Amino acid sequence: MDIRKNPYRADFPLLASHPEIAFLDSAATAQRPACVLDAQRRFYETMNANPLRGLYSLSVAATAAIADVRAQVATLIGAPGARDVIFTRNTSESLNLVAKSFSPCVLGPGDEVAITIMEHHSNLIPWQEACRAAGARLVYLYPEKDGTLTDAEIAEKIGPRTKIVSAAHVSNVMGCELPARKLADAAHAVGAVMVVDAAQSVPHLRVNVDELGADFLAFSGHKAMGPMGVGVLWGRHDLLEQMPPMLTGGEMIDSVREQDATWAPVPEKFEAGTQDAAGIYATGAALSYLTETVGLDAVAAREGELVAYAMERLSELGFIDLIGPADAARHHGVISFNVRGVHPHDVASILDASGVCIRAGHHCAQPLLAWLGVENLACCRASLAFYNDKNDVDRLVDGLTQVWGIFHGSD
Amino acid sequence: MDIRKNPYRADFPLLASHPEIAFLDSAATAQRPACVLDAQRRFYETMNANPLRGLYSLSVAATAAIADVRAQVATLIGAPGARDVIFTRNTSESLNLVAKSFSPCVLGPGDEVAITIMEHHSNLIPWQEACRAAGARLVYLYPEKDGTLTDAEIAEKIGPRTKIVSAAHVSNVMGCELPARKLADAAHAVGAVMVVDAAQSVPHLRVNVDELGADFLAFSGHKAMGPMGVGVLWGRHDLLEQMPPMLTGGEMIDSVREQDATWAPVPEKFEAGTQDAAGIYATGAALSYLTETVGLDAVAAREGELVAYAMERLSELGFIDLIGPADAARHHGVISFNVRGVHPHDVASILDASGVCIRAGHHCAQPLLAWLGVENLACCRASLAFYNDKNDVDRLVDGLTQVWGIFHGSD
Repeated sequence: MDIRKNPYRADFPLLASHPEIAFLDSAATAQRPACVLDAQRRFYETMNANPLRGLYSLSVAATAAIADVRAQVATLIGAPGARDVIFTRNTSESLNLVAKSFSPCVLGPGDEVAITIMEHHSNLIPWQEACRAAGARLVYLYPEKDGTLTDAEIAEKIGPRTKIVSAAHVSNVMGCELPARKLADAAHAVGAVMVVDAAQSVPHLRVNVDELGADFLAFSGHKAMGPMGVGVLWGRHDLLEQMPPMLTGGEMIDSVREQDATWAPVPEKFEAGTQDAAGIYATGAALSYLTETVGLDAVAAREGELVAYAMERLSELGFIDLIGPADAARHHGVISFNVRGVHPHDVASILDASGVCIRAGHHCAQPLLAWLGVENLACCRASLAFYNDKNDVDRLVDGLTQVWGIFHGSD
Repeated sequence: MDIRKNPYRADFPLLASHPEIAFLDSAATAQRPACVLDAQRRFYETMNANPLRGLYSLSVAATAAIADVRAQVATLIGAPGARDVIFTRNTSESLNLVAKSFSPCVLGPGDEVAITIMEHHSNLIPWQEACRAAGARLVYLYPEKDGTLTDAEIAEKIGPRTKIVSAAHVSNVMGCELPARKLADAAHAVGAVMVVDAAQSVPHLRVNVDELGADFLAFSGHKAMGPMGVGVLWGRHDLLEQMPPMLTGGEMIDSVREQDATWAPVPEKFEAGTQDAAGIYATGAALSYLTETVGLDAVAAREGELVAYAMERLSELGFIDLIGPADAARHHGVISFNVRGVHPHDVASILDASGVCIRAGHHCAQPLLAWLGVENLACCRASLAFYNDKNDVDRLVDGLTQVWGIFHGSD
């Protein structure tokens, strides 16, 4: 795996036609290979129709396309069946669906939902709301400063009052994997369910709901090379069966009378209105590209080397304060940091002038940054994908050196 | 406007490359012109980044693209400002958002929500749910059999207990326009708000929130030549300000602490998670194509002639039971009917064999079909767009003649 070479960049039209861009913001949204854009267009050019509702060939083809991707997602995450794969708009909607529709099934006054302080707002505010609605308590697990969640913390925070545990599989700020399986075991030991936010792991790691012990798992297509607008929620069938729909209308019904309605089976029950069939079809192409054309082993190997090289170069600079584990092997694509004494917004703007795209701000994780004591509740984040190369990292390092020079003079 | 000629079909790749297809299901989802598919791809190839959250040029371009389309939508529907245009996934989500987030602001026990029996399930079940949650009553307005809502019916059903009136601008089954302005005036006279489901009108008519008296208006991009996955909700600013978000997480916040959060201003407050920026950008291209390249006057003129011709031909067959107004001028693209004694599913399947795509079933309007006494709660629907032509109608008529022959012999 030679990170000086880049056999992938040519697959990505934006990167291929913009050699001046070093794209280091894949944790926000990925770039898309041509095969995904081709698939999206192919849907509209060859099978465009409203799925589910038609009895003509185009509509049947559109319906079949969705069914195929449902099965593909189930295989990807090791789910027992395609019927429990629900298509949403994004991870946020998937997590809202669990918090809004499942919480009332189990959560009452005095009960607890346990999450970690490392959660993205999308796996945090929905639980604030669910707890408020139920009179329940939102309990936080706090890691060591390097992101490690200890067994003691898990044992202390997950107990008889816990009904739901929800955690990121990989932190979008710290970059590290959380011990989903340990959390799930602790949850199951007290009869609670385990929700996994896999938005930051599906693009990088093998994700298996059985191995993770997940009862619900959410992720987004657009961070995994798919088009924007498609999210996934997988759930245990018996739990999905219990849950009322969050959104109603369209083909999610069995029958409707003037004053009441009954619901279609899972998963249609949760898919109100016209689905983005073209986006779902193209998400299938994206997952095929990621897992077959590139391959998850190659992804992990290449990203591992890129992260290790980047962290080594960053540490050599002497003015970078890293957030998250010191061990590069624990970072899955994400490296957060600050340039000492320089506001992250200034860092990002200066880097942009030389085509280096990083993200700066709170990364939708304000409680984490507050708990870490990060100044201005803001930091820089460079996030790597397999389509990056050594040159991208070198340009980041050069840019940061320039930032330092601007703010601290060349004396 | 010569409906024998078709200057538009070549703009639509699926139709251009499939001369064997007579697509008569545009009320379910439209076909897309190449310029829309080009725009969607252009986003990914030239400005692909997560909008709102970035400080680099790509992300700024993505953010600006969304802002431009917001302004374009506001202009299209005559809204006073772009800030009150919210992007959702589809009309269903837009209507759910009003029913879930606005209803609790005004609806209490004994209050009433008034809708018509002509509503799509997406403008019906959300109100069943909202009424159930509030202990309120869902009241129906019933039209004459031709779809006409009388002044007497409006006066009888909208009264001092009414807090919300919600109605389709154009019925997806009857094809006729509902008297939105009269409903709005009656609603406003009793201090209620008016919600307009414009899913079936935006592709065909000039829609102006001020002229309609709408306080909320919802529609979908995908029925108006845009890609799937983008819906719009416009709302009166003071009402949107009052409403809590339906979905939380992502960039819809101002600040988040461990136990509570405050919201971003409208419209971001309602846009949790990563938006389908590419889809929104392409929706802008679709609306430009519809309103500038083709032009709404040309759309209305051509569709008017097509509908008139189709209804004349259908009436000549002698075995068609029409649903909705007898007057072709009152049909906006949609013609629903049954072939006497033949199940609509059989009609659609037989037509499909000769490339004629119509929809058959309950059209997400079961209470309407029950009220109309339509057998099997199912009917056929041919829905026309400006990109159809006389040949499409002739093929429909030929196909129906064949259906009749199959079921009633050639004796």
